[in-house]
Amino acid sequence: MYTRFTGLSAFPLTPLHDDVVDEAAFAGLIERLVAAGVDSITALGSTGSYAYLTPEERARVARLTVEHAGATPVFVGVGGLRTSHVLAHVDSAEDAGAAGILLAPMTYQALTPDDVFELYRTVTEHTQLPVIVYDNPGTTHFTFTTDLYARIAQLPGIVSIKIPGVPTDPGKAREHVAGIRAVIPEHVTIGVSGDAFAATGLNAGCEAWYSVIGGTLPEPALAITRAAQAGDFEDAVAESERLAPLWALFAEYGGSLRVTAAIAEHLGLTPQQCLPLPIQGLTGEQRARVADVVDQLGLA
Amino acid sequence: MYTRFTGLSAFPLTPLHDDVVDEAAFAGLIERLVAAGVDSITALGSTGSYAYLTPEERARVARLTVEHAGATPVFVGVGGLRTSHVLAHVDSAEDAGAAGILLAPMTYQALTPDDVFELYRTVTEHTQLPVIVYDNPGTTHFTFTTDLYARIAQLPGIVSIKIPGVPTDPGKAREHVAGIRAVIPEHVTIGVSGDAFAATGLNAGCEAWYSVIGGTLPEPALAITRAAQAGDFEDAVAESERLAPLWALFAEYGGSLRVTAAIAEHLGLTPQQCLPLPIQGLTGEQRARVADVVDQLGLA
Repeated sequence: MYTRFTGLSAFPLTPLHDDVVDEAAFAGLIERLVAAGVDSITALGSTGSYAYLTPEERARVARLTVEHAGATPVFVGVGGLRTSHVLAHVDSAEDAGAAGILLAPMTYQALTPDDVFELYRTVTEHTQLPVIVYDNPGTTHFTFTTDLYARIAQLPGIVSIKIPGVPTDPGKAREHVAGIRAVIPEHVTIGVSGDAFAATGLNAGCEAWYSVIGGTLPEPALAITRAAQAGDFEDAVAESERLAPLWALFAEYGGSLRVTAAIAEHLGLTPQQCLPLPIQGLTGEQRARVADVVDQLGLA
Repeated sequence: MYTRFTGLSAFPLTPLHDDVVDEAAFAGLIERLVAAGVDSITALGSTGSYAYLTPEERARVARLTVEHAGATPVFVGVGGLRTSHVLAHVDSAEDAGAAGILLAPMTYQALTPDDVFELYRTVTEHTQLPVIVYDNPGTTHFTFTTDLYARIAQLPGIVSIKIPGVPTDPGKAREHVAGIRAVIPEHVTIGVSGDAFAATGLNAGCEAWYSVIGGTLPEPALAITRAAQAGDFEDAVAESERLAPLWALFAEYGGSLRVTAAIAEHLGLTPQQCLPLPIQGLTGEQRARVADVVDQLGLA
């Protein structure tokens, strides 16, 4: 069965300007992704600042994405701290014409595995939309176990699991992905995230890459993805290693978001200071280093 | 100078019933705190589920608290993920007649110390209300340093710092509190939290206790507080040790919130299942143990 929950899913930023969503800049990002030929677009992922936006802003961003995405499938992040709020985001994603939804178990108070299972159960009962399980412990501070993946993946409507990276050793990465694959239904795809791990993850059997950098620099992300899909594992690794200076900045500057925003700002794709306060983004000196790397890698 | 940012500040639950704030139950909780004689009430703390409520619910809860608190000062939690949302919560707390606000640096993306400093600077510039710095790494996943306490405490309007517990050894606790005291202005009080640490913290020089259990069981919390304030340090410790079975349940069941909600439900102060989903609260077996402890300690 052909499923769209494979290949490169690009996660665009949701740029703000003076605390208001810059709709023109956002539409430009989406059109850029479509032109590059990404396999899907996931709006309102962590990269798209879903957790910071109002329900109205999120509904509007979902609609804008579908409007500008043409035939490219659009997935929409629907996470929230309260189950009833999540269901409202699901409704607005459905109204917008999303092809799927992405759900992370956001926490303020720590959640139990049963809390999280019930959240997914409630959502899959509420909607016909395919659901991607979004495991992002760096932001949610919730840790999935393989057992919990297995329980949730049995729910009707679950189509994919976005996992947070893989071991860097190729053999260990294959083992890790195979361990998850063994306990989930065949139709549920596994998607790697953590851009620096993408080539290893795809080579290890992940069918998708849920990609931060792919939302802003789709071509180099597609080069990695297409090489891995063609079985050219060494080429995938080489394409990823070419971007090592970028992965180093992600690690040094506390993650991908601020660096990716600085890249988008450097390339003029978004306004300056496009992240929601209190996130100030990189300092001037850090931005200069990001710009150097982008220019030296010929990504501009 | 007399300041109200001392003594027992009681943190009531915000009980929900079928995903709607139970206003009658909430008003009852507030009146119970006033009758017991707590020094202040902090509505919409972590115990009050601020992070889960809509801006409208939060404005309504702030107003209800002030309406039912009589002469007891009311502080209101104003935290949020986005600075502009925090400012809106500040405005609604002001409109409600709050005597102060409590601000935790909520995170989804990790924040830098500069991000957090700027958040407090923006808020203190925006309002005349006194601001309590809310350091709650268990929920915010942001770690304050003593240096950052010092920077933020210099801001005009900062009146208190709610610290997350103290070392259990009384000498080390005194050292810890003295270390913070040494770098912040004299008028800024230090308040302990983590109820099991309260007696040790008050004995070590904390001027306030920001108390979860005090919001539901004010009398035993007042007994600890008044003993410590009178210099009867051994009595304060004895009153706290009497509650050791309760502190053990907090530790065993992943924190104070679910246990406190189960106590309030057991005492008929709130509806059953009063926490916001996806937080399911304790299981039936766990609730039975909580009820046993409450009954055996004569807290009913």
